[in-house]
Amino acid sequence: MKDVNVGICGLGTVGGGTFNVLTRNAALIAGRAGCNIRITRVASRRSRDDLALGSIPFSTDIFDVVNDPDIDIVVELIGGYEAAKELVLAAIANGKHVVTANKALIAVHGNEIFDAAEKAGVVVAYEAGVAGGIPVIKAVREGLAANRIDTIAGIINGTGNYILTEMRAGRDFAEVLKEAQDLGYAEADPTFDVEGIDAAHKLTILASSGLGVPLQFEKAYTEGISSLTPYDIAHAELLGYRVKHLGIARRREDGIELRVHPTLVPRSHLIAQVDGVLNAVMVDGDAVGQTMYYGPGAGDEATASAVIADIVDVARSVAAGSKQRVPYLGFSPEALEDLPVLPMEDIQSAYYLRIQALDRPGVLAKIAAILSEHGINIESIMQKESEFKDGRIPVIILTHTVQERQMNLAIEEMEALADIADKVIRIRAENFN
Amino acid sequence: MKDVNVGICGLGTVGGGTFNVLTRNAALIAGRAGCNIRITRVASRRSRDDLALGSIPFSTDIFDVVNDPDIDIVVELIGGYEAAKELVLAAIANGKHVVTANKALIAVHGNEIFDAAEKAGVVVAYEAGVAGGIPVIKAVREGLAANRIDTIAGIINGTGNYILTEMRAGRDFAEVLKEAQDLGYAEADPTFDVEGIDAAHKLTILASSGLGVPLQFEKAYTEGISSLTPYDIAHAELLGYRVKHLGIARRREDGIELRVHPTLVPRSHLIAQVDGVLNAVMVDGDAVGQTMYYGPGAGDEATASAVIADIVDVARSVAAGSKQRVPYLGFSPEALEDLPVLPMEDIQSAYYLRIQALDRPGVLAKIAAILSEHGINIESIMQKESEFKDGRIPVIILTHTVQERQMNLAIEEMEALADIADKVIRIRAENFN
Repeated sequence: MKDVNVGICGLGTVGGGTFNVLTRNAALIAGRAGCNIRITRVASRRSRDDLALGSIPFSTDIFDVVNDPDIDIVVELIGGYEAAKELVLAAIANGKHVVTANKALIAVHGNEIFDAAEKAGVVVAYEAGVAGGIPVIKAVREGLAANRIDTIAGIINGTGNYILTEMRAGRDFAEVLKEAQDLGYAEADPTFDVEGIDAAHKLTILASSGLGVPLQFEKAYTEGISSLTPYDIAHAELLGYRVKHLGIARRREDGIELRVHPTLVPRSHLIAQVDGVLNAVMVDGDAVGQTMYYGPGAGDEATASAVIADIVDVARSVAAGSKQRVPYLGFSPEALEDLPVLPMEDIQSAYYLRIQALDRPGVLAKIAAILSEHGINIESIMQKESEFKDGRIPVIILTHTVQERQMNLAIEEMEALADIADKVIRIRAENFN
Repeated sequence: MKDVNVGICGLGTVGGGTFNVLTRNAALIAGRAGCNIRITRVASRRSRDDLALGSIPFSTDIFDVVNDPDIDIVVELIGGYEAAKELVLAAIANGKHVVTANKALIAVHGNEIFDAAEKAGVVVAYEAGVAGGIPVIKAVREGLAANRIDTIAGIINGTGNYILTEMRAGRDFAEVLKEAQDLGYAEADPTFDVEGIDAAHKLTILASSGLGVPLQFEKAYTEGISSLTPYDIAHAELLGYRVKHLGIARRREDGIELRVHPTLVPRSHLIAQVDGVLNAVMVDGDAVGQTMYYGPGAGDEATASAVIADIVDVARSVAAGSKQRVPYLGFSPEALEDLPVLPMEDIQSAYYLRIQALDRPGVLAKIAAILSEHGINIESIMQKESEFKDGRIPVIILTHTVQERQMNLAIEEMEALADIADKVIRIRAENFN
């Protein structure tokens, strides 16, 4: 059986997990890959005494891995942008295949990296960058290859989903965030997770590999969950909807929607049932219809599972001496469509609105008139007894799908009414049917 | 761009869908595959006027496809056992790759077919045989290649799941089956679907490609849903469980469990939320934990989606002139473990029991004593007021996990009690945690 040599750069959570699973399941993985996958060098700023490195050479300079002539596959698990980019480009320049879990790197520098890899004839694989252990990149690039994929929507940040799940019990964002930090689910600086940046990295990659467009992270819209209230979450539930922090990519005739924001989804839809730190990605294809992929989006061995799946794919190719590979973004570079990301004003969505009306006659008629003028149809409406001491009456409306530009204009006009006491709360909604 | 030539055998539901999707999405699929996938011959007992065959040669003899020297990939969509086997073996003998949606063929004759294909150096791909459009074979063979897979459990027959979903409203099996037949969800002879044979075909394939054991369909245990009552379904719900018709494969130290039967699953588990004709497969791996794959398990274009994904995989390999391929059952033939399928007496499961007790003092104590003697712990118990005119009192018990042999003995002893009026109703239960 042939040997394929792997060098691991980075021994953090995922690096340690990858080392441990590759070691523990070595015989099983060889049986699947048809070759021995050997870890022949490891590099990391700091070593880890808990890993059984044995006689495997360890160094603190990650470039020792890249410059080792015996290594076939460089596994980049150091994270971050610049050092990782330098490392990956150096590996490619040395003719090595690359496996990475670095979503930020691929989302931001992927086009450049794939271009270099294409010229060098090497693979750059990134399954572990999206939704942790769920093999969803393989699903959209290969399993659904027959389909024109129209919509991808995912719960792709476990921290955010954990917080939203806990907020259903009526708890405030800040309180749950604190708890998530104590439990180790959220970072000390939670911005990346709760403001949707991490999800936007993953969504960018999913959108490109599924819809077949270049990576355009800088055009992705991100809106976090930090301003959501238990009040609106509870009222969404009353309307039959659950609030999830979704990444949504959708193909339109003249471009793609690429957006991360809190979203009402029908409680009867399977994605609404995905709770806690778990991830799920729903993919809608013209032939297959809706499919969904569910599992752990983070964790040492869960993410290692995806890293190693990529290693096995590459190792099979190395062992067979084959040039066969799946294109980086699912399509041959010349077949990628240069579709622009649509500005948010051009997206289409349904909306949940909470309007703080003063308790005066005729206010509902005025609201309805404004919506109607902008072609916005009402799906359901709830006028609540005032629960606020200042006598404001919350009017809660769920609309049909409309262009966001129209909704923005309608909200502007409503907020200008003397009968409306405050900013209109607006949360997008999707039916996914 | 290179051409790869495909011949389709069989123009039924899936054949027509495959033809239509390959034609409609030809440019998109070429962009993904890196080659033109051309349908160059079609054969079927009957032609279909609704398909735009154009100048593609059509014949009524399927062997015309197999014997066409220009064809690279034979797509077997005729179904059934003997003719399909003959066709596939002839294709292999002629050095052609094979893509099939035929679960019965693979489950029953797969070992022989893969053996022949291995010797000939060709691919036999069967994603469409399991769970329709859901790329679950790709997930277990490739996406989860790092894992020792311990458990696979799936809703893999849409007809059965539709019937069970409708029965939750209190309707009888026979009534819902009739409706499913009228809607075209169930065949005139529903045995294959409702008695679990179709699910056992799919489970056999899933188990082998995930757990890495030879195909052993003849050892699979099958128990259908035709004797389930709305009464037990409702009482399972009261206990927090939902009844699903599951295929379950599980690795034990000394063998594998391979069984299809009605199963109580916790309502809070995502698989319990999969309703109607949809399918879902849950896979538990030692590194990744639990993942789940959900989508349409049948339908012309949904199944075609999986057929074409296989065609694209093979076409990439043909176009690259590469010998690289994923082993038929996920593992190299010599790495398959020759684990036996355990007899049902040796499986481990929790159980829902409904015991028809006569209204006499001490009967509950006797039941508890019998369970205790066999080491069976009670998770919860419900004693109902008699709802039956004959004064029998149903005692409903949910047990912890125990070996089925112990449960069989306990049931035998309970049924021998003078206080027990009827056969004990027994439905297996799983917690999947």
